[in-house]
Amino acid sequence: MAKQVTVKELYTADTEVTEPVELTGWVKTVRASKNVGFVELNDGSSLKNVQIVMKSDLPNYEALGKMPISTTITVEGTVAYTPKAPQPFEIHAASIKEVGHSDNDYPLQKKKHSYEYLRTIAHLRPRTNTFYSVFKIRSLAAFAVHQYLQDRDFVYVNTPLITSSDSEGAGEMFRVTTLDLNNLPKDEEGHVDDTQDFFKKETNLTVSGQLPVESFALALRNVYTFGPTFRAENSHTTRHASEFWMIEPEMAFADLKDVMDVSEGLLKSVIRYLFSHAQDELQFLNDNVDDQLIERLTTTVNEEFARVTYTDAIDILQQADVDFEEPVEWGIDLDAEHERYLSEQVYKKPVFLTDYPKDIKAFYMRDNADEKTVAAVDLLVPEIGELVGGSQREEREAVLAQKIQDFNLSEDEYQWYLDLRKYGETEHSGFGIGFERLVMYVTGIDNIRDVIPYPRTPGNAEF
Amino acid sequence: MAKQVTVKELYTADTEVTEPVELTGWVKTVRASKNVGFVELNDGSSLKNVQIVMKSDLPNYEALGKMPISTTITVEGTVAYTPKAPQPFEIHAASIKEVGHSDNDYPLQKKKHSYEYLRTIAHLRPRTNTFYSVFKIRSLAAFAVHQYLQDRDFVYVNTPLITSSDSEGAGEMFRVTTLDLNNLPKDEEGHVDDTQDFFKKETNLTVSGQLPVESFALALRNVYTFGPTFRAENSHTTRHASEFWMIEPEMAFADLKDVMDVSEGLLKSVIRYLFSHAQDELQFLNDNVDDQLIERLTTTVNEEFARVTYTDAIDILQQADVDFEEPVEWGIDLDAEHERYLSEQVYKKPVFLTDYPKDIKAFYMRDNADEKTVAAVDLLVPEIGELVGGSQREEREAVLAQKIQDFNLSEDEYQWYLDLRKYGETEHSGFGIGFERLVMYVTGIDNIRDVIPYPRTPGNAEF
Repeated sequence: MAKQVTVKELYTADTEVTEPVELTGWVKTVRASKNVGFVELNDGSSLKNVQIVMKSDLPNYEALGKMPISTTITVEGTVAYTPKAPQPFEIHAASIKEVGHSDNDYPLQKKKHSYEYLRTIAHLRPRTNTFYSVFKIRSLAAFAVHQYLQDRDFVYVNTPLITSSDSEGAGEMFRVTTLDLNNLPKDEEGHVDDTQDFFKKETNLTVSGQLPVESFALALRNVYTFGPTFRAENSHTTRHASEFWMIEPEMAFADLKDVMDVSEGLLKSVIRYLFSHAQDELQFLNDNVDDQLIERLTTTVNEEFARVTYTDAIDILQQADVDFEEPVEWGIDLDAEHERYLSEQVYKKPVFLTDYPKDIKAFYMRDNADEKTVAAVDLLVPEIGELVGGSQREEREAVLAQKIQDFNLSEDEYQWYLDLRKYGETEHSGFGIGFERLVMYVTGIDNIRDVIPYPRTPGNAEF
Repeated sequence: MAKQVTVKELYTADTEVTEPVELTGWVKTVRASKNVGFVELNDGSSLKNVQIVMKSDLPNYEALGKMPISTTITVEGTVAYTPKAPQPFEIHAASIKEVGHSDNDYPLQKKKHSYEYLRTIAHLRPRTNTFYSVFKIRSLAAFAVHQYLQDRDFVYVNTPLITSSDSEGAGEMFRVTTLDLNNLPKDEEGHVDDTQDFFKKETNLTVSGQLPVESFALALRNVYTFGPTFRAENSHTTRHASEFWMIEPEMAFADLKDVMDVSEGLLKSVIRYLFSHAQDELQFLNDNVDDQLIERLTTTVNEEFARVTYTDAIDILQQADVDFEEPVEWGIDLDAEHERYLSEQVYKKPVFLTDYPKDIKAFYMRDNADEKTVAAVDLLVPEIGELVGGSQREEREAVLAQKIQDFNLSEDEYQWYLDLRKYGETEHSGFGIGFERLVMYVTGIDNIRDVIPYPRTPGNAEF
């Protein structure tokens, strides 16, 4: 009996395989002449196909020559090594059996398709080389994130997605409800009676797990979330989706320098993991999507990230010989043009900007002694812009209470968050990485819709 | 200068630490007499505390003796090894500095608190030994799941949470909307105009990623989801939550036997990982929560899981000398009492039940040749009941189309799912594991609310 093998096993075997083998996979292409035919077979175990050579003496040779793309076949044969050919081996088929039918009108014929078209067949696009590569890399990057953090004793915490908190100004939220919209319960004043909703109050989908995960850092020291977050913004850019994944590490007894050290280490570790686990996929994307990809990632791994204060960065931008669309002055929230100029033109590598004006940052960031800035940091990377945002958290109870007032937030709603300080004012810090932005950075794909299996954007929730 | 260390580093050091050390952590208890005082310090790196011995000649000795629980302190001192004492070492303090205040009315004083009370302070309960252990084990179990699957080339796929599909009868769903409930747009007939909602149609929170992830198995071979799912059911049991995490592996070229092999391998691998990475936490839970825990997990790892058909299991139940509340006959959906009898009394270990009546299983499960059953499998485990549910998927396009009709589902809505067969009828199979049930199994905790950081159940969405 032939030995069952996968394409990946054949490509990675230490020694030549001499016994008969059996492979099951999908037909990618078939061409057959009178005497001999060739099938490109893929079985999902590898981006690479294997070539099946079939001689015309196979009993069903004529039918095999007409198999539609994506037919499932089982091949028995021998491995013939071809050291001089572009492919290191091929399979000489002793038998080929069609085990699963496919229709003739397969929508992914061999020619190139636009990304726009492929989004309309999101259930089939993983069968293309590009999306095979993107989604394999997405998976490997996710695992590399877990591995880096777990190796350092970070505890993975699944913070809730349904929340009764507001968004701390981070963005618009989606309402979650079981009320019958065609028959809403009303209170005496004619307003919707939220107390009759599933959770007996108004609930929404979270924009961040940071605040709830802080409570775990104050017990388990180093923790992280890695899960979905949501923004109900009517945004149609290539960098925003309504549903996306965030990585949010949070560390007790840690300051802004620790944020930079850990996030830099994490990003480099992810890229190194991809270099050793996704060579084929990175090479394919470099050849077909972004020819700067491998060079950019190599630089990212090899160079120390730059570190500069916001205030110094403003100086650099003001002295730059560039006509920015938005004028630069201390206090502004930097635009993509400014961020990209810094990372792509000035430093030519990722750069941390620290100590932003307090007025443009969130209430929970720790006030610096200058009373103008907070201990915040953003990492700006070439091509993408902001990839990481972090801060030291305001751990001083009285200062935090004042900031909650200054930001017009409800002290009642944040009482539990103040409690974390009331029962232990502990220095702590954390950061967030938009996982899809990271995947864009490591694949060279420039539209967020093409790194998400089934993207959700305004007007789009198909499949 | 003293060397900064963590408690974990001290407990796991290969050789005795002789240089001066500096530790920062939280005060768990303090007691001080005239001449000497003791602080139990925890820094989150370990479930274990370290004892700090302070002599009365410390300049702030009197104040230190009155420190509230959860004060953050930095200790400099030397490690004194105490091989004959229960604790292998203690720290003789040269200085202790209070670096973070805590209030005197800390709600977690040393006495035992009920789980119910601790749920009301979910932001503080990770600071207890029980919840420290539970959430550390939850994290390690999650990583062990990823590691097992990634080691076998399974590709992690983040299927969408916001969906426009229905739930295939799996349960009630939460509506996701940005419509203003107090000012709903109406169509000409007076119904809510869903086309004006964010996604231009009605959307809900998913109950399962299985269907969308199947499309990836048919390209990437072995894939899995691991993410949140939702049920809007008014269920108040100890085993149901409104938001919970599911692990859903899906494999191309795989049948029901593969489902059993992989899920058994996965569960055993997770438990082995915990045995080697969470000894302290498992021992604590065994001593304080469930004294059968380690024995049960050891059996699970060492014994081959039993495998029996549903039909044979019905025979066994009918012949059992037990008065079940629900009478047993072929065709019923087994109740918890039946499931637990099989795993706890008959097999005394996890047992796979296979080939269920088609009428009680989902439309996508593959019809067996007997025309009465489907290639479905549930894993029943002691104490928990159903832990895994899986099936071979119906890959025959015509059969699946008929089943969609028989189940009164919309062929339009499932056209993309039929497409997966139209363009490749490939044998494939998968399973789902409720992650919280797994965490309950490996911690001995018997209420799902106590294995979720911030549990969501009807009427509860706090923090």
